[in-house]
Amino acid sequence: MSKGLPKRSEDYSLWYNELVKKADLAENSDVRGCMVIKPYGFAIWEKMQATLDGMFKDTGHSNAYFPLFIPKSYLSKEADHVEGFAKECAVVTHYRLKNDENGKGVVVDPDAKLEEELIVRPTSETIIWNSYKNWIQSYRDLPLLINQWANVVRWEMRTRLFLRTAEFLWQEGHTAHATKQEAIDETVQMMNVYADFAENFLALPVLKGVKSESERFAGAEDTYCIEALMQDGKALQAGTSHFLGQNFAKAFDVKFANAEGGAMEYVWGTSWGVSTRLMGALIMAHSDDQGLVLPPKLAPFQVVIVPIFKSDEQLAEISEVALKIKDDLKKLGISVKFDNRKTHKPGWKFAEYELKGTPVRIAIGPKDLENGTIEVARRDLLEKNVMPLDDTFAQGISDLLDNIQETIYKKALDYRTSHSFEVDTYEEFKKIIASEAGGFVYAHWDGTAETEERIKNETKATIRCIPIDQKQEEGKCVYSGQPSKGRVVFAKAY
Amino acid sequence: MSKGLPKRSEDYSLWYNELVKKADLAENSDVRGCMVIKPYGFAIWEKMQATLDGMFKDTGHSNAYFPLFIPKSYLSKEADHVEGFAKECAVVTHYRLKNDENGKGVVVDPDAKLEEELIVRPTSETIIWNSYKNWIQSYRDLPLLINQWANVVRWEMRTRLFLRTAEFLWQEGHTAHATKQEAIDETVQMMNVYADFAENFLALPVLKGVKSESERFAGAEDTYCIEALMQDGKALQAGTSHFLGQNFAKAFDVKFANAEGGAMEYVWGTSWGVSTRLMGALIMAHSDDQGLVLPPKLAPFQVVIVPIFKSDEQLAEISEVALKIKDDLKKLGISVKFDNRKTHKPGWKFAEYELKGTPVRIAIGPKDLENGTIEVARRDLLEKNVMPLDDTFAQGISDLLDNIQETIYKKALDYRTSHSFEVDTYEEFKKIIASEAGGFVYAHWDGTAETEERIKNETKATIRCIPIDQKQEEGKCVYSGQPSKGRVVFAKAY
Repeated sequence: MSKGLPKRSEDYSLWYNELVKKADLAENSDVRGCMVIKPYGFAIWEKMQATLDGMFKDTGHSNAYFPLFIPKSYLSKEADHVEGFAKECAVVTHYRLKNDENGKGVVVDPDAKLEEELIVRPTSETIIWNSYKNWIQSYRDLPLLINQWANVVRWEMRTRLFLRTAEFLWQEGHTAHATKQEAIDETVQMMNVYADFAENFLALPVLKGVKSESERFAGAEDTYCIEALMQDGKALQAGTSHFLGQNFAKAFDVKFANAEGGAMEYVWGTSWGVSTRLMGALIMAHSDDQGLVLPPKLAPFQVVIVPIFKSDEQLAEISEVALKIKDDLKKLGISVKFDNRKTHKPGWKFAEYELKGTPVRIAIGPKDLENGTIEVARRDLLEKNVMPLDDTFAQGISDLLDNIQETIYKKALDYRTSHSFEVDTYEEFKKIIASEAGGFVYAHWDGTAETEERIKNETKATIRCIPIDQKQEEGKCVYSGQPSKGRVVFAKAY
Repeated sequence: MSKGLPKRSEDYSLWYNELVKKADLAENSDVRGCMVIKPYGFAIWEKMQATLDGMFKDTGHSNAYFPLFIPKSYLSKEADHVEGFAKECAVVTHYRLKNDENGKGVVVDPDAKLEEELIVRPTSETIIWNSYKNWIQSYRDLPLLINQWANVVRWEMRTRLFLRTAEFLWQEGHTAHATKQEAIDETVQMMNVYADFAENFLALPVLKGVKSESERFAGAEDTYCIEALMQDGKALQAGTSHFLGQNFAKAFDVKFANAEGGAMEYVWGTSWGVSTRLMGALIMAHSDDQGLVLPPKLAPFQVVIVPIFKSDEQLAEISEVALKIKDDLKKLGISVKFDNRKTHKPGWKFAEYELKGTPVRIAIGPKDLENGTIEVARRDLLEKNVMPLDDTFAQGISDLLDNIQETIYKKALDYRTSHSFEVDTYEEFKKIIASEAGGFVYAHWDGTAETEERIKNETKATIRCIPIDQKQEEGKCVYSGQPSKGRVVFAKAY
């Protein structure tokens, strides 16, 4: 009963799209490229938000909120930045509609044209640094450690639910520091926070690294990133953290009086973000042909109890036990849904929660009541067992959830390990990149944008990152034969 | 040390604006009418959000997210709705910028004009009911109980921080029901949730009532509201809950097969929202000439500890005690900031936390260490006491916070009581409305929009609501002398 989900092996892309819709995570709206995040999908995003928000606060950041609109002229103040974002932005030109002359509907009122067009933020560096100019006078005002949860708009031409949408939700951290080193440390710290979140909550192993110049954020000196591998062998950039140098400080004239005598210096900046794209990563990394597989730490509810009954009396008896179970599990911090609907049969419910990735399903029927047992099914391995309903069962479920979280991570890690390759020739390189299995390819590169570009054109593979833990190793570029000091990671990517 | 805050009695409006800025709550951005919510202000909003979100979930609602953009044609589908919002909306007409010909900056690319203009949502009924059309087929899909936290844009010409801004943050609930009664019950329930929140968290007594037809939400059959009274005698609408009838169901053709034989019926709807305007209500209702007064339940931190020291040794000794205090208070769920900065003097800190409304300030100096005491100051009454630092102190602080929450509420309630008047003549009516003290005026009204309009033009007073608990009482309209069955509440309003 997979509710008509296509198989991954047959059409991974279709499988993903169908899964997102059938599991009630999101759907396309009538507005081109903009999605609707449905309640079940949003509940997962809320868990991600809450977790990340706690991690940001633990590292000293506060939340704030800046305007949705950016005056067109601000975008132009940092040259690379405008180059990166001007080509795909939503532009507000008017502030009023009026009734159509023939009385049918409304039209834009030509008399309500804005003097300066406003851009719907694609990212907020410009509007934020324009505020920072007034907030920062002295070294005492630094560091300034701010995060914002917001919607942003980038007018992508080819969109896919969660992975690439015209509007998406994200968080963007924007920090200001007195020294270069402190800003770099912050950049690295936030990459590590993202990696920690990915591994311990998304159950997703990630590579940490630095982007090559051509993959860098528009306006950054360096972009750090975390890169994950999806089940189709393609990479997905799951989070980025940018060292901005003094670029935005210079563009917006943000200076501070230093501690050593009060000389005026430009501030050093960082920015970092993750988005609803993480939903795409989560779905693609773990799910199977039966539907979603959710790590327990991010599941909207971790356990579902399905009663098997033929009469109202049976349901009443089972309910009593089920509510006791729910209560006992709640005491251990486990979230439980008891699905006592009479409108749907148990088989339908089993398929439904399998599709929606509920980590643990408990079924209770009349036989179980007699025997003092429950049937416990784990979603990740599609295994089920009969467990005695005794004093230890709640702890048993708690341990099972921990085990599922670990197992999912381990499976993704094993997959990545078996899909990571060191290659020394361009032939090998092309063979792996072109193969259906795909994967991360560790190869020597001569460090030039030209070679990078040619490889991309010939194979569609891009440099995902220069790993943080890159081994120092003399070698020759797989493409040009020029010397290299270490391998970088190539892959096809989302 | 009021840091130059104007007095309320001299210029209430200026006092408010200055307080919002000096207490680091928010500031105007360079984008007309759009504010920046600063970290301290946003921390209060986050507490409001978390509390309300819990209340929505406790009443069965789930969060979701719908697109920022609304196709122009959607807005027109409900006639009253478009009439209400078309005149003040931000319109996206293009999706790309390009480099200016003379190489200076960027201009809108005329080749990237949208086929249909998009409106930045002023509220989301239209885009949401367009989705509901696909989500609802049968009575089994109902009720549909969804909330969204989002930014919205209404192109207001005269803006004020928090109270009226072009962009603001809010939540909007949108529910769909099988019966009229169920939808009305939901509408009333959410008004009650808002009133509960206002009274128990904002410490703000509110009137519950129904709007007159002319003050109704554009597209609603009935608008329920909560109305609060500010310290300048003006009313502030703090939340609204709309019974939409079948208006949006008809505009977007949302029907369901009923439980009795499956006949197709139009769905009944509600929508309800509160916004960052609540921040304005909070500030204006309680604060004084010294600065903010925050109810403990919404304060970013409830207690601040200020050490009084002359040497590093003294600071070290005090810190040990302070951290113990912080720990003990934390165990009771109390949030504490220990401000051990050496860059600022105790007097500066005292003024700062007074300005920022921290409910309780604890000062510890060398004398206190000797005596085993602390100095405890409550912000609301500007009173201070020396307390022994013994086993009971933490509970004492907890009780004090409860007392502050109650005292603030009581003060606002007393204010409202002493500023509520029953009047029977238009002379009396005009006298009170024109007086500096202002207030709520309970008066008979003939129920016509004409009278309402004339009173508004002559006095600037509007009908705030027809109270839910309106006494049935025969009377004559203060304006027209026509018969009336009960008093309604008039006031000048924000």
